[in-house]
Amino acid sequence: MRFSDLLAHLGEVGDASPRDLGSDPELVGAQALDQAVAGQLGFLERGNALAAALEGTKAGAVLLPLDPELQSQASAQGLAWVALKDPRLGFAEALDALYPRQPKAPGIDATAVVAASALVSPTAHIGARVVIGEHCQIAEGCILHPGAILYEDVQLGPACEIHSGAVLHPGSRLAAQCVVHSNAVIGSEGFGFVPTAQGWRKMPQTGLVVLEEAVEVGCGTTIDRPSVGETRIGAGSKIDNLVQIGHGVVTGRGCALASQVGIAGGAKLGNGVILAGQVGVANRAVIGDRAIASSKSGIHGEVAPGEVVSGYPAIPNRLWLRCSATFNKLPEMAKSLRQLQARQG
Amino acid sequence: MRFSDLLAHLGEVGDASPRDLGSDPELVGAQALDQAVAGQLGFLERGNALAAALEGTKAGAVLLPLDPELQSQASAQGLAWVALKDPRLGFAEALDALYPRQPKAPGIDATAVVAASALVSPTAHIGARVVIGEHCQIAEGCILHPGAILYEDVQLGPACEIHSGAVLHPGSRLAAQCVVHSNAVIGSEGFGFVPTAQGWRKMPQTGLVVLEEAVEVGCGTTIDRPSVGETRIGAGSKIDNLVQIGHGVVTGRGCALASQVGIAGGAKLGNGVILAGQVGVANRAVIGDRAIASSKSGIHGEVAPGEVVSGYPAIPNRLWLRCSATFNKLPEMAKSLRQLQARQG
Amino acid sequence: MRFSDLLAHLGEVGDASPRDLGSDPELVGAQALDQAVAGQLGFLERGNALAAALEGTKAGAVLLPLDPELQSQASAQGLAWVALKDPRLGFAEALDALYPRQPKAPGIDATAVVAASALVSPTAHIGARVVIGEHCQIAEGCILHPGAILYEDVQLGPACEIHSGAVLHPGSRLAAQCVVHSNAVIGSEGFGFVPTAQGWRKMPQTGLVVLEEAVEVGCGTTIDRPSVGETRIGAGSKIDNLVQIGHGVVTGRGCALASQVGIAGGAKLGNGVILAGQVGVANRAVIGDRAIASSKSGIHGEVAPGEVVSGYPAIPNRLWLRCSATFNKLPEMAKSLRQLQARQG
Repeated sequence: MRFSDLLAHLGEVGDASPRDLGSDPELVGAQALDQAVAGQLGFLERGNALAAALEGTKAGAVLLPLDPELQSQASAQGLAWVALKDPRLGFAEALDALYPRQPKAPGIDATAVVAASALVSPTAHIGARVVIGEHCQIAEGCILHPGAILYEDVQLGPACEIHSGAVLHPGSRLAAQCVVHSNAVIGSEGFGFVPTAQGWRKMPQTGLVVLEEAVEVGCGTTIDRPSVGETRIGAGSKIDNLVQIGHGVVTGRGCALASQVGIAGGAKLGNGVILAGQVGVANRAVIGDRAIASSKSGIHGEVAPGEVVSGYPAIPNRLWLRCSATFNKLPEMAKSLRQLQARQG
Repeated sequence: MRFSDLLAHLGEVGDASPRDLGSDPELVGAQALDQAVAGQLGFLERGNALAAALEGTKAGAVLLPLDPELQSQASAQGLAWVALKDPRLGFAEALDALYPRQPKAPGIDATAVVAASALVSPTAHIGARVVIGEHCQIAEGCILHPGAILYEDVQLGPACEIHSGAVLHPGSRLAAQCVVHSNAVIGSEGFGFVPTAQGWRKMPQTGLVVLEEAVEVGCGTTIDRPSVGETRIGAGSKIDNLVQIGHGVVTGRGCALASQVGIAGGAKLGNGVILAGQVGVANRAVIGDRAIASSKSGIHGEVAPGEVVSGYPAIPNRLWLRCSATFNKLPEMAKSLRQLQARQG
Repeated sequence: MRFSDLLAHLGEVGDASPRDLGSDPELVGAQALDQAVAGQLGFLERGNALAAALEGTKAGAVLLPLDPELQSQASAQGLAWVALKDPRLGFAEALDALYPRQPKAPGIDATAVVAASALVSPTAHIGARVVIGEHCQIAEGCILHPGAILYEDVQLGPACEIHSGAVLHPGSRLAAQCVVHSNAVIGSEGFGFVPTAQGWRKMPQTGLVVLEEAVEVGCGTTIDRPSVGETRIGAGSKIDNLVQIGHGVVTGRGCALASQVGIAGGAKLGNGVILAGQVGVANRAVIGDRAIASSKSGIHGEVAPGEVVSGYPAIPNRLWLRCSATFNKLPEMAKSLRQLQARQG
């Protein structure tokens, strides 16, 4: 595809965006700037660690930020370029154009096992060895990759994609355009046990899991159903690999949960909450809209909307940064303290 | 089911327990008090965060603690109620009555693959696409959900339940009433490698994993087999999702391991040990009976029976709470220290 | 097998190694020294925690370190023994001899689904219910256990082993002798989303994952592919269970990553890096050759070659040990400080 043709695919690019098409190179793929070769598209953001890579890049074309200096430099190097307000977003659009997804043929593979009472849209793609339980409903345009398993009474809205090895337990409800990655488990029994004189007695987990529109669930991630009621993930939330979401957790819209996060039962997250890798959230904690927790922090109680927290137990990020820096001086501080005490006799 | 009929299912409820059946409402389900509607059962514990919800609840009936004040309040609201010593346990019994499990028909699904030398009880339920290897033994009443996979020489005691996507490796021994949730892996090779001049050389893992009676293993959890001998989980222990249990670990009876706990090779846990979420236990650590570790703590060496530990490296919980509180004042402390030093010249 | 015959299997044992074959016992297995019975082989290393177990062991024979005192003791007990420079390595060799792996018959199980365009070596073993997508290439001697799933365009080098429930996504490239354990996921989409006014927009993940020779990937571990380019694991690296490796991570040769490690996108690891359990590595961090991170540490920025780091944020291990020890005295320090301030008025 010619660079000029690619530009037509970049949604936000108007005729007014600065550009220098150079020789309008033919592009066959994309790559990081420092590894790109001729025929490949790269991109650069303002403040990007790869800024130095522009000089030496062998890319055929590059998406730049609105920065005249970088633009001049690119032209001087003979690079074709276009400058965008959000080059990363443009790169996403470009990748979709350069690497179009192969459509999946509708129909049910002969080796799939579909219960008689299940309703499967004729436009859905049901891959090899998929198992679909009684009373499931699979809406139009869904893709179930080989080996995906749906227990009974699972409902998938339009255009959901369920990857190989994912397991959806009874009663799971997925709205449109959800993606469940390989080996994720949705709607399994919450970890609820009542202590008795005879040991742990299971609390029956009769609730269900609801994923609102466009939720994405990473590989190996587990989202449990509660004893009663729902576990609910808000629309547009994105969950990375190996995340644990306990029974009865409710999240708002557009949350982003990085890998290995663990959220214990009954916690509530607002809209747009971001939890970095390996964060833990305790039972019934409440996290306000757009709050952010940095990696490995552990949250109990409440986090106010918009707050940025760190550490365990989590405290405001700025305080934590200062405390952590001082932590590294503890041996010196202890020594100074002993000296002062000695002088005072 | 009428509330009066439901009471017959609550094991611990004698004729003597206080109650007010009101209009003896018909119950069709259960829900948290603050979300319940007519026809639903709720419950309340002493000190429960939902106590305030009693006033506004629309539940049809409620299980209460032995608290006359709450009982009077419920009657005044026209709520049907019964008061129990352990309302949570009563709720568990009630859920089993209100949501009876569907029995699974005995037999082997036509799409299952069962090795010729495997012994499968005629009362077991073997679901679609299950694979059972050579010399496996499946006792009476076992349920294997679609897509469960047993390598060779796996033994399941009576009434075990193996969920979809779970994988049991050679030699795994499960006693009666064990539950293995989706995508858990039992008995895979321990992570044992010997450093050599040519790189890491695999230590063969010839041992096996034993789950004693009524052990429950969460989704995606992995329990490794050792180079020699056993990895053993004590009777009645409950393990949450995404937990790692290394080769040669031995736990006592009735342990509870929350999600994302990691236990390294050769560690020993006593009876009734409770590890909260994301706790780590180092190689060959020894944890005494009924010890508790709070979330994210990291344990080396030994923890005494009954001890409660926190932090990393883990220390007694009370000390840790005080140290953590002081940690947040480190910048002030450093400043005070500098001032004192300055004054002293 | 006679002990004398077993010795022929221990690669490093020359005629010159000290030994006392005693009655040249028949060996049928191996076990830890403190649990071994007659007919079982044990081993002991210098400084091993089980040294005291030698005295009471019932093992039939034992591999000892080059320590004349231990050798005399063993002979005095009537134990057959051989002394090795590396008894652990000898034990690995012995286990392979005592517990030979059953070879898998070449061929494709009748219940496997293999795409027409896939190339499968006639010497490969393809188990029950395996799914192999279009354009896959499976080299000689590969073993795919029941239920393994390969999306399209996956390439396996000679003698790879893919365990049940593992899923390999499009474009994954495995060199010779790689092992992928149960329910691991290789080459799924990296967690890349661009914030927009309409919410998170997926960054297409068009890259692929490369495992170099003899890489081993633990159960439930996830290795993501990047938006462009490669995620690459260096030859001979060993990865434990439930590890997350983000998009675009590159590791050197011979790394060892313990369970529940998480490595965020774009991080670079040198050769021989060792990360202990639950370590986290931030985006684009750079870790030098042979660096070591102790369990639960969190790494940002750079770690120099050979450095040993601990804590979060990670600092040199020796400093961290001293700071952690002082942390436990923080309440006392705060009290002392208050007293000093009070005295100074």
